[in-house]
Amino acid sequence: MKKRIALLPGDGIGKEVVDVTVEVLKTVAEHFHHQFQFDYGLIGGDAIDQKGNPLPEETIAICKQADAIILGAVGGPKWDQNPMELRPERGLLALRKELDLFANLRPITTFDSLLDSSPLKKEYVNGVDFVIVRELTGGLYFGKPSERITYEGQEAVVDTLLYKRSEIERIIESAFEIASKRRRKHITSVDKANVLESSRVWREVAEEVAKRYPEVTLEHMLVDNAAMQLIRSPKQFDVIVTENMFGDILSDEASMITGSLGMLASASLSSTGLHLYEPIHGSAPDIAGKNIANPVATILSAAMMLRQSFGLEEEAKAIEKAVDNVLNSGTRTADLAQGNKAASTKQMAEEIKNAL
Amino acid sequence: MKKRIALLPGDGIGKEVVDVTVEVLKTVAEHFHHQFQFDYGLIGGDAIDQKGNPLPEETIAICKQADAIILGAVGGPKWDQNPMELRPERGLLALRKELDLFANLRPITTFDSLLDSSPLKKEYVNGVDFVIVRELTGGLYFGKPSERITYEGQEAVVDTLLYKRSEIERIIESAFEIASKRRRKHITSVDKANVLESSRVWREVAEEVAKRYPEVTLEHMLVDNAAMQLIRSPKQFDVIVTENMFGDILSDEASMITGSLGMLASASLSSTGLHLYEPIHGSAPDIAGKNIANPVATILSAAMMLRQSFGLEEEAKAIEKAVDNVLNSGTRTADLAQGNKAASTKQMAEEIKNAL
Ligand SMILES: CC(C)[C@H](C(=O)O)[C@@H](O)C(=O)O
Ligand SMILES: CC(C)[C@H](C(=O)O)[C@@H](O)C(=O)O
Repeated sequence: MKKRIALLPGDGIGKEVVDVTVEVLKTVAEHFHHQFQFDYGLIGGDAIDQKGNPLPEETIAICKQADAIILGAVGGPKWDQNPMELRPERGLLALRKELDLFANLRPITTFDSLLDSSPLKKEYVNGVDFVIVRELTGGLYFGKPSERITYEGQEAVVDTLLYKRSEIERIIESAFEIASKRRRKHITSVDKANVLESSRVWREVAEEVAKRYPEVTLEHMLVDNAAMQLIRSPKQFDVIVTENMFGDILSDEASMITGSLGMLASASLSSTGLHLYEPIHGSAPDIAGKNIANPVATILSAAMMLRQSFGLEEEAKAIEKAVDNVLNSGTRTADLAQGNKAASTKQMAEEIKNAL
Repeated sequence: MKKRIALLPGDGIGKEVVDVTVEVLKTVAEHFHHQFQFDYGLIGGDAIDQKGNPLPEETIAICKQADAIILGAVGGPKWDQNPMELRPERGLLALRKELDLFANLRPITTFDSLLDSSPLKKEYVNGVDFVIVRELTGGLYFGKPSERITYEGQEAVVDTLLYKRSEIERIIESAFEIASKRRRKHITSVDKANVLESSRVWREVAEEVAKRYPEVTLEHMLVDNAAMQLIRSPKQFDVIVTENMFGDILSDEASMITGSLGMLASASLSSTGLHLYEPIHGSAPDIAGKNIANPVATILSAAMMLRQSFGLEEEAKAIEKAVDNVLNSGTRTADLAQGNKAASTKQMAEEIKNAL
């Protein structure tokens, strides 16, 4: 199989984790006789420094020519004081919009060998296995107006939570597809229907879509309650679907359940078939350039890509198995070493390659 | 001292927990030679059933004549299908707006005797002691438009996150006052400044106010990160200040840290001096009427009232100490009994009265 993969390392540890992921992908290609072509693009702070734009035209072009995209991370204190259009995050938000990456999938699973690193007690975490499906191109993130105004004669500011019904429908449909075909057939739709009109439409649409999936059970949960339930009994969840801002908050909260933020992968799926894969963690400027970041989240994101974008199930499984084996052998990067001797970013990737 | 207290039991377990709290307050009054007059008002589902309105005019009048308000809880499945204006929550939201209850204070503290009931490991939770200051009368909860619209020729829906600068300023000032006079002088201001314009104004105002409190350190934290940090290292927090919707989500999440939702009190402070006190937990329709609800959160809310509204520090402490003693003696309501014999709502309150 011949595939083009766009690589957007971005900022901070983004570069390091993408670099070693490429090595793992090259090994997979050799082993399974595929040809992967890698094209690098600039995004985030790096792109601001080199091109004066967090998402240069060239980067968009590189992505559009590719069959899939791997992103590292964007952001860092260096650009925090920049005006909005010159901030790294704008690059990521603009890319999501430009490529219509509307469905962000974040699987939350435990690794048996890492259960002890969770802040939660083992019996709460043991066997947790759910996925958050977050809407990624609508809501408060993109609604207009988003500006300073005069209101009742006073200085004020407004942001806008806007959804087309069709945008709500397609993300809920994605969640039902996943629940029905790939998981345990239970959906928790999270909203704030006792306060927001958008949530009431969300709930209506969820009910409508549910009629087409009689084998899937649908439950509604208020977002404040969901924030509690994620801690109180995370095992109850199979598929969570929610709007952009709620999804941002809840998925970061959920990443703490397993205590292995450095292990969690994500996929952002588009309507066009060109999808993006990235680790859940950020650019971690404090540890950037030290060869100590955990590359597993990015390596597992690459596995998601092989499965979801290229249909290479066997190859995806091979990576996942290699990661499991290396963890079981006791190798850990600094984030998980708990004071024991830690492997470097490169060593970790090297061991995964060898285990392949 | 002579004081009038408006009681709004509301729905579900609201009635039971308010009833026994009144008994505790009567004991305090006797003991310390005060006169408390109690005036009952309808709110929520109960008010809908009896008056066709979740916040009848009489209730507002009763509150306005009082020196402080104690609320139980509102809501239940019975009214979930009602149109918006006939839902119990509307009563609470309207009351907040009507009485300008703009600052919701939710202290998150651990009870040594209950540390084991947290889903989090002891070492994460031990000694946690912070307060969330949530803006309660602005933002997405009250902004207009909040309605279905046609957008780009399609069915759509919009909600509005609106803040006057002065509304942001007063809540941040409240947080600084609390941090400076009553706590450890550290503020974490939570926003989403990398996406929302309202958050950027929020951050500016926080910086401005901070200049007037040089003894207080101010830190900004993005809301997604805050949702992580609350689990990862809750001890880092002293005072968290945030806008309405973020505060709703984060404070419910935070209530899980200590594993004692049934123990957590809250105060909603107004600009006029007429404040409202209520437990953090909801109306819990599944256990309503069974005399098994944990009344401690409401009893501790009453203690907050004595301190904050009436300046009765000694009396407040007496209640808090009584609660501590009863817990230390091993008495637990069903929510915390972990399979052991549980005290009823009335027994729990009775023991607290006796310990006074
Ligand atoms: C960087 C930021 C704009 C982004 C978001 O809020 O969506 C990030 O937090 C994420 O979750 O991918
Ligand atoms: C009942 C509901 C409207 C309310 C809110 O969202 O503010 C509740 O969740 C709370 O936190 O007091």
